[in-house]
Amino acid sequence: MIAVVALSPALDVTHHVDGVDWAGVNRPARVRAVAGGKGLNVASTLHALGADVLLLGVAGGPTGAAVRAGLRTTGVPAVFTEIAADTRRTFVVVDTRGGDVASFYEPAAAVTAAEFALFLATYRDTLPGCAAVVLSGSLPPGLPAGTYAELITVAAEAGVPVLLDTSGEALLRGAAAGPAIVKPNLAELAAATGRALRWVSGSDRPGMPERAGKPGGGIEPDQAAEPDRAAVLAAAGWLRVHGAQSVVVSLGAAGLLAVTGDGAWLAAPDPVDGNPTGAGDAAVAGLAHALTLGQSWPDRLRHAAALGAATAAAAVAGEFAADDYQRAVAGLRIRQLEHA
Amino acid sequence: MIAVVALSPALDVTHHVDGVDWAGVNRPARVRAVAGGKGLNVASTLHALGADVLLLGVAGGPTGAAVRAGLRTTGVPAVFTEIAADTRRTFVVVDTRGGDVASFYEPAAAVTAAEFALFLATYRDTLPGCAAVVLSGSLPPGLPAGTYAELITVAAEAGVPVLLDTSGEALLRGAAAGPAIVKPNLAELAAATGRALRWVSGSDRPGMPERAGKPGGGIEPDQAAEPDRAAVLAAAGWLRVHGAQSVVVSLGAAGLLAVTGDGAWLAAPDPVDGNPTGAGDAAVAGLAHALTLGQSWPDRLRHAAALGAATAAAAVAGEFAADDYQRAVAGLRIRQLEHA
Repeated sequence: MIAVVALSPALDVTHHVDGVDWAGVNRPARVRAVAGGKGLNVASTLHALGADVLLLGVAGGPTGAAVRAGLRTTGVPAVFTEIAADTRRTFVVVDTRGGDVASFYEPAAAVTAAEFALFLATYRDTLPGCAAVVLSGSLPPGLPAGTYAELITVAAEAGVPVLLDTSGEALLRGAAAGPAIVKPNLAELAAATGRALRWVSGSDRPGMPERAGKPGGGIEPDQAAEPDRAAVLAAAGWLRVHGAQSVVVSLGAAGLLAVTGDGAWLAAPDPVDGNPTGAGDAAVAGLAHALTLGQSWPDRLRHAAALGAATAAAAVAGEFAADDYQRAVAGLRIRQLEHA
Repeated sequence: MIAVVALSPALDVTHHVDGVDWAGVNRPARVRAVAGGKGLNVASTLHALGADVLLLGVAGGPTGAAVRAGLRTTGVPAVFTEIAADTRRTFVVVDTRGGDVASFYEPAAAVTAAEFALFLATYRDTLPGCAAVVLSGSLPPGLPAGTYAELITVAAEAGVPVLLDTSGEALLRGAAAGPAIVKPNLAELAAATGRALRWVSGSDRPGMPERAGKPGGGIEPDQAAEPDRAAVLAAAGWLRVHGAQSVVVSLGAAGLLAVTGDGAWLAAPDPVDGNPTGAGDAAVAGLAHALTLGQSWPDRLRHAAALGAATAAAAVAGEFAADDYQRAVAGLRIRQLEHA
């Protein structure tokens, strides 16, 4: 079983409006309210893959009840620890005429020390049956930056590998606790390591014309990206020195770059037109799934990058089409990189 | 006791954002979620007036639970009939820098015939203790246009006068059942009677300069409005012929116009700068309150128009300051109108 920890889930409410009046009254043609947040996206993708998954979350108040009810409709098994604060909402307004999308993210519901102690007891009880743990998302108010580090240490004592997807101090403290994989994106890696990192595509180079035959406008790494790729490799390597066993950097449309004890790889998918929301979460699900299947690093990256691309092609975070996944696998280029 | 019926309540969620990106991600500085909808506003104002009030509502799903929980914090007594559908949300984004306010109103939760039968049983049980009933808001999907007419007839059998605030077919059918008061606004009166009605202020007249000494830009009726006032009186009279015992038309900043069996009156407040949201609901509360106190029509209109003006001066629907109310009472001009 793979346990996915969600300490800041959300009720994702989406309004579709045909021609929004941003200074007036609107009556949405379509309203959608689903259980959301990064951990729930990861768990949904694992569930869709047929993996044995259990979401371990916190939820409180009427919005927490809505999240629990929403998750039940998806069939994803979950155990929630009740908290006093009302779970947050995210509001997304989609203008189906103008194309604009406005998002409003409420702050996560605070978790008290006593509530976390209850969560931790459930977590400890769950670990003996786990092949892997995924820790995903930012920490809610009330919990110290070392919270993920504590969960990694507890999992290590039970012999369970952990995949950590967070940012800032929680990522640094977590990496120091020695998780199997950390999965920052480029901005998170830059912020955590204090380095200026930028992934340069061929068409970004001054004086370099847009290359023909590249639909979708995806940022695709090539030889021109070498200088920045070196900086990304160095920053990822620094996180390994800092404690993480391996580091997988998600590069959006440019795919995944992994620095591990077995070597470094770049998994670059074909460009995809779509919605990148949730693609990183799908890649995390793919990495955890492949880890529990004992796959090699190139196979893990192929699975994870293809899931990310297929999820970007789908309209909804946590969902993907098998056809898109197969196409993405076929279009992937996996290349081993030189890394000291 | 005054019973206030709320068949389409809402959870009102407001996000305050300092500089909204209408095409990007926003993190609201302040989030407010309260029980809302017209019936709840009326009940809140009555509760603030110290009246003995009972809200009779329907609520369902997790959002219904949030509405119930929100109402409990206000101290307004309420009995809700549980429905299967999830209660609606309204979502308001206030740009505290730019000043724009965007509102998104979800459709009301559907009520089935079986659920309405349960509601009706509660309503019948409540009537013997009631001095008045307020029916407020549009009918939710699932209920026929004659629903308010049925509630008025049942109340009449119990000897309880009814104040009806709704629109369209529900207003016409309701008026035919003989309620004590119907309270349309100008647009609702025009739509229900099929007449073009417009309230013309002095400064609207072509070639007429903006009058000096009129702060706030309120539309104030004066002699120049006579032709349209006559049309409003005629339309209100038509609703009385149609069955309503009296008709009070809310004219926004111009106050209230009443056509009753005892005569016709105009209650015009001093201009108020503020938010008109909820002012009509406050006027309804005032009319119901004054009705149960046995006040004369001029006194009823003074109370109702002053509550409307004081609520417009407040920031939140259902709330008003006693000072604003006293100021509004002092500034009111009540004039009896000629009416055939």
